Parts: sequence; structure tokens; C-alpha cells
Amino acid sequence: MQKTVRAAIVIIGNEILSGKTADKNVQFLSTELNNLGIRVSEVRMIMDIESEIMDTVLAMSKKYDYVFTTGGIGPTHDDITSASIAKAFGRKLLLDQCALECLRLLYKEEEINEARIRMAYIPENCELIENPMSHAPGFILENIHVMAGVPRIMQSMFSTLKGKLKGGEVMKSQSVTTFLTEGLFALDLENIQENNKEVEIGSYPFAFDGKRGTTLIVSGYSDNEITKAYNDIVEMIKKLGGELVNVPEEAK
Amino acid sequence: MQKTVRAAIVIIGNEILSGKTADKNVQFLSTELNNLGIRVSEVRMIMDIESEIMDTVLAMSKKYDYVFTTGGIGPTHDDITSASIAKAFGRKLLLDQCALECLRLLYKEEEINEARIRMAYIPENCELIENPMSHAPGFILENIHVMAGVPRIMQSMFSTLKGKLKGGEVMKSQSVTTFLTEGLFALDLENIQENNKEVEIGSYPFAFDGKRGTTLIVSGYSDNEITKAYNDIVEMIKKLGGELVNVPEEAK
Repeated sequence: MQKTVRAAIVIIGNEILSGKTADKNVQFLSTELNNLGIRVSEVRMIMDIESEIMDTVLAMSKKYDYVFTTGGIGPTHDDITSASIAKAFGRKLLLDQCALECLRLLYKEEEINEARIRMAYIPENCELIENPMSHAPGFILENIHVMAGVPRIMQSMFSTLKGKLKGGEVMKSQSVTTFLTEGLFALDLENIQENNKEVEIGSYPFAFDGKRGTTLIVSGYSDNEITKAYNDIVEMIKKLGGELVNVPEEAK
Repeated sequence: MQKTVRAAIVIIGNEILSGKTADKNVQFLSTELNNLGIRVSEVRMIMDIESEIMDTVLAMSKKYDYVFTTGGIGPTHDDITSASIAKAFGRKLLLDQCALECLRLLYKEEEINEARIRMAYIPENCELIENPMSHAPGFILENIHVMAGVPRIMQSMFSTLKGKLKGGEVMKSQSVTTFLTEGLFALDLENIQENNKEVEIGSYPFAFDGKRGTTLIVSGYSDNEITKAYNDIVEMIKKLGGELVNVPEEAK
């Protein structure tokens, strides 16, 4: 089996931690990265504090193959991500001529003021990440990919980035939903997991239409192994008198 | 000023990191905790892996006043939160008679099988967290509050818990939205932040109805200080020819 490629997502911004803004970047990035064969193994959400950003990117960069950050690369005083990451890696933050050219695509010459020029300051020797939506670029420093926090801008940056990422094998999955509750089959399911060690079986309870039930997800790298465990689970459900049902995604 | 009370949220579960399930617990807990004067300073989302859970709860417990975990306390093989936290703190995982009584409220005697009894195994010497929704309790170990992952169950557990939490001063905020973009006012805003050091000013760009704009949020502990900074910002916007506007929350 090909090596598993693993990533961390770092969401930078007080607005997420205050509850004022709902994060929309984790699910988007997790789905996209996992589809590329890059397994998201950890997410950290941190405040706009220099030492927190420095410690977090250094730790995540060391622990995982890829790191993706969102937030804090705009022109205002609370946008300290680029400077903090530069400092963490002992690099200078320099005016990048390519980044400045990117800004010229969005702004007229007289609109390129001191504040906007800040967005063209990039840690030295970094590759830029294009920003088709609003042009101020992100950057790649070692294995860290620094992107905007606004979801539609981050998504447009990621669209230009994804072709360059090298994933491992893509994890696939099959799922089954039943109105049996976990307590009815937990021991049988554990046996199925024991007999199918190459896959991961997750069990997720829900309530829908006044009834409690469970979604079981089998994830793995081989279709045969997934199908074998899936069939074992379907057999278990039928043996317990349960049925396979469909419930809306949002109920799960 | 009263001491700031700080918390970390730890979301445990592969389903969040795979992108299959959207997290709904961070925004709920962040909002509730901040309203209690407990400032959420960090969120970590981790996999159902013993060493990850152990390392994360130990680190967060040391760093913050409170830790709140969600996920991994059900009856299936992938529910390893309670055992991992017990191990991290060198405590035995024991059958708790009170927790077993809780389960008897939900299940008939013949339904209390080996799998369901697992949910009554709690690290020794912990206070239980009541679960009005589905009875299997959470627990408090030192400053760590262990709750279910299913949002409506977590919320019902939190409702019984919140009266026991001791917050510091509650952070308040005022916000203003304008169709000026950040680059137009970033330097002026930095001056306002310099002149109002007791508050935090956050700047959040958005697009709505084809127009780009910014929401500015002033947060602090004193109404007077917040209002002063807020008025400075309103004056700045008007001086730049901008207007205060209302846009729907979901656009921000």
C-alpha cells in the first residue's frame, strides 16, 4: 500500500473562536484533501496571536506532510499570519514584486496604497498561491500553504493549488444507515472490525423523525476489503431484525 | 479587571476530519462559553486515536482553565475517549453505579447489555455530567469536561453543566458593517486600535450583492471603552465617504 499522506488544517482568527463566525473552511478543505489522497489528521483553530501562530505552524509542519492555514493575510492590523510564519521560520518578510503585480490586476495605480501594499509582503523565497477571486496571493513556505480566511476566496486559491499537491492512495468508503441503535450491535460490530483490520469502521448515532438510528461508515483503500466489511455489517443488521434505511444527510 | 478565564474545545472524531460530517459543536460551545465569561482560546479536532487524545487533553488541561471535549463516549469500538482520558491521568476506568442508574432511566433491564454497560465505565473519582436527552452521562476529570459528540445530546449535557462553570468578566462587542474595503481604511483603523488599546478591533471582509465590504467588530470588557472605539470607527467611515449598512449574517 502506498504511504499515507497526512495534513493539518490551521484556522487562524478570533472571530471563529468567539462564536461570531461559523467556520466553513474545515469541511471544504477536509473533503477536497481527502479526495486527493491527503488525509486530514488534525485541525487547530487559534487566535490572531503571534506566539500561537508561530508555535502551531512549527508543530504542525513537523508532524504532518502538509499544513494548510486560512485567515490573517489581509491588509489590516489584525492580519499577522504572514509576519508570524516568517518569524517562526527565521525568514524576512519582503515586498514581493510578483505579489505586487497581482494586486495591480485588481487595483488602479492610485488605489495601491500603503495598506494594500502590505498584502504583497511575503516571507522570502516562497512560492505564491494565485488568488483568482481577489488577486492578493497566498504563499507556500516549506510544507505550509497559507491562504485567505474568507471561504470563497480560500476556495478560489485552493482551486489553483490542488493540481500541485501530491496525495497518497485515496481513501474510499461505503456507508449504511439503520434505525438500530449502537447498543444493540456494538459487540458484533467490534467483531467485524476485528475480522476486517484493513478497514476503519465508524459508528455515528443520529435521531430522525422521532427515531434513533446509526450510520456505519467503512473506510479503506481497497474496494474488496471495504465491500467485505460492508457485507458483514449488512448481514449483522438483518440478523438483528434491522433494515437499511435512507435518512437525509442533515439528520446524521 | 477580573482575571480572564480561558478554555479549549477538543472535538474528537474521524468523521469530522474526513469531511463527512460538518462540525456543529464549535460555534455552539464558543458562543455559550464566551457568554459565560469563558474565553475560548483554542479548538483542536483530532482523530479517535488513543495517543492523540491523551496528548491533546494533557496539553490543553495544562494550558487553559477549562477544557471541553465532544465525541467518543458511546458504546462502540471507536468510542475510546473515556479510556484514553483515564489513561492520560493514570486513573482506572471503573463501572460507575450512578452512571448505570442513569442508563436504567433509558433502557429496560433486559436491554442493559454488555455494550450499553460500557457507557457507565467512567474514570475513577469523576463527577458525572447529566444527559437529559439520552441519559448516558459525561464526566468531569480535573478541568476537563467530557461530553457526547451528537450536537443535540451535547447541548442537553451542556445545559446541565453551565450553571457550575465559573467565568470571568463577559466580553462584550459592538459591530459595524460598511461597503468600504479594508485597504481603504487599514492604516486609520490601526491608529484607532493604537488609541484604544483596551479593546480588540477585528476586521472581516465579505461580499454581498456583488459588492465587497467589511464588518468591524470592537470587543472588550467596558461599555465605555467599546463605545469610544466604535464611535472612532463610525467617524472614520463617514470621513472616507462610507456608510453604515446592514447585510445578512450569512453574507459575512
